[in-house]
Amino acid sequence: MAPLPQRCVIREVGLRDGLQSIQTVLPTERKIEWIRAAHEAGQREIEVGSFVPARLLPQLADTAELVAYAKTLPDLFVSVLVPNLKGAERALEMQADLMLVPLSASEAHSLANLRKTPDEVVAEVARMRAARDASGAKTLIEGGIGTAFGCTLQGRVEPAEVLRRMQALLDAGADRVSLADTVGYANPAAVRALFEAAREIAGERLCCAHFHDTRGLALANVYAALQAGVTRFDATLGGIGGCPHAPGASGNASSEDLAFMLADMGIDTGIDIERLLALRARVAQWLEGETLHGTLWRAGLPKTFGAIAHHA
Amino acid sequence: MAPLPQRCVIREVGLRDGLQSIQTVLPTERKIEWIRAAHEAGQREIEVGSFVPARLLPQLADTAELVAYAKTLPDLFVSVLVPNLKGAERALEMQADLMLVPLSASEAHSLANLRKTPDEVVAEVARMRAARDASGAKTLIEGGIGTAFGCTLQGRVEPAEVLRRMQALLDAGADRVSLADTVGYANPAAVRALFEAAREIAGERLCCAHFHDTRGLALANVYAALQAGVTRFDATLGGIGGCPHAPGASGNASSEDLAFMLADMGIDTGIDIERLLALRARVAQWLEGETLHGTLWRAGLPKTFGAIAHHA
Repeated sequence: MAPLPQRCVIREVGLRDGLQSIQTVLPTERKIEWIRAAHEAGQREIEVGSFVPARLLPQLADTAELVAYAKTLPDLFVSVLVPNLKGAERALEMQADLMLVPLSASEAHSLANLRKTPDEVVAEVARMRAARDASGAKTLIEGGIGTAFGCTLQGRVEPAEVLRRMQALLDAGADRVSLADTVGYANPAAVRALFEAAREIAGERLCCAHFHDTRGLALANVYAALQAGVTRFDATLGGIGGCPHAPGASGNASSEDLAFMLADMGIDTGIDIERLLALRARVAQWLEGETLHGTLWRAGLPKTFGAIAHHA
Repeated sequence: MAPLPQRCVIREVGLRDGLQSIQTVLPTERKIEWIRAAHEAGQREIEVGSFVPARLLPQLADTAELVAYAKTLPDLFVSVLVPNLKGAERALEMQADLMLVPLSASEAHSLANLRKTPDEVVAEVARMRAARDASGAKTLIEGGIGTAFGCTLQGRVEPAEVLRRMQALLDAGADRVSLADTVGYANPAAVRALFEAAREIAGERLCCAHFHDTRGLALANVYAALQAGVTRFDATLGGIGGCPHAPGASGNASSEDLAFMLADMGIDTGIDIERLLALRARVAQWLEGETLHGTLWRAGLPKTFGAIAHHA
């Protein structure tokens, strides 16, 4: 058995992937409270929003303000999603630590969700890289490959196609790449196989796994990815989220359940789970009427849970 | 990576572990319908009930009738739970294929749940074995070690203690042993470590893993157990169940979600998942007002799901 890692990072994407797919528009001051409390609970990587046109996602129109706030918090690595060069320019201007550029391995999903072909996204990444290098900003570029395990529109997505896109993103200048099961089609065997193959191509530049819990497999998939050497996982508080263009997709991996699973296996995430559960309760109040997910908030921590959270 | 098995068995325990912990008393004809439909859906191992005094579990008072019915179905392996010699004598009389004798590795849980110490259970297994051998019946004896990963009453349960109990059960004449996370305290790393150690002691006689989804880890734990060589898993349709003496425990691994995960990984369970989902919908109607669990019934099968169920 390959040893499990000693440390992992849970990247909180609830403020982006979570909020973009629900009706409730959370006021900026609530989001700031969320970011502050997540940081206090030990979270050190947060995707605070998305630089998309406000008419498309009014929920995320305050992303610049959130980046500016988040950057005032010590040791917080601040990510934003950027769908195009214009978004990237805003991320560079705001000195975000990382910009995640989504690419859908499924052509059908790419056209529906991003209104671009995968090749066009790769070309855009090359322009972003040029802009980043010219700007002198330190913002990292992550190519995030979505629908990597299949797609509700197109069905099967070939692993070879995913790996080809990954290579193309790296060639175009992405600093990092990640794989996302956007619609909850992955299973642990597929996860392990694809991440192991991806790691052979990208090495340490394969930085993150993003799973949805649509069919209850998010945590099993995390365990499989851990065994393939992945040490960073996207998750959302209360498991909120899904993809509006992927019918049936509902619920990201829940940050608190994931933090519990990792800590209970002796893997340090730096997260104080009690604090994270308290934050979840507040966010659940703010989002009253929306569907939240996860199990730990109801069951509580086991009597045997003894992991001490170490803040990074 | 150790290769995953080609075939696995999902042992349906909804009629026992599920029904014993909910209020609704399902009429015998409904249970017979459930057993028949589960068999039609390809399930080949069913724990149909428990030979406990009817005053303790009136929900399961019709176990003898269910064993008699289930034994009429071709290729169905019929299990019952028996807490003591008296129950075992009924199982032998009814020619059940297997009787599962629960032993709690936690002393506190054992006294609360079984009103016996673990040592007393081991002694009872020796008497059951003598009775079985004297009767000429072919009924197998499985020692099922519960609270193997901890306990809500006692907290931590030492793996060495679990393994010692396992050896004692085998020495007393159990044909098989299994490990159960009765209260949902297991995590994948603990599962893999304990099952690997148990397999070194029991070899192929380590026959089954029983997980609860209290903290969302049931399927991740199954994936870990698969890697430790386990090929039989208890589960309940709709994830119903829990232990009345283990506060907070709720929900077994869901049969349909588990069947999906295994099939999607290319592991044959012989189960027709569409039929199983149809049965779940009927059972959900019968149990109106009770809490069912699982995710597949809501999300449906992925477009990419192409496994063909092979009936055993």
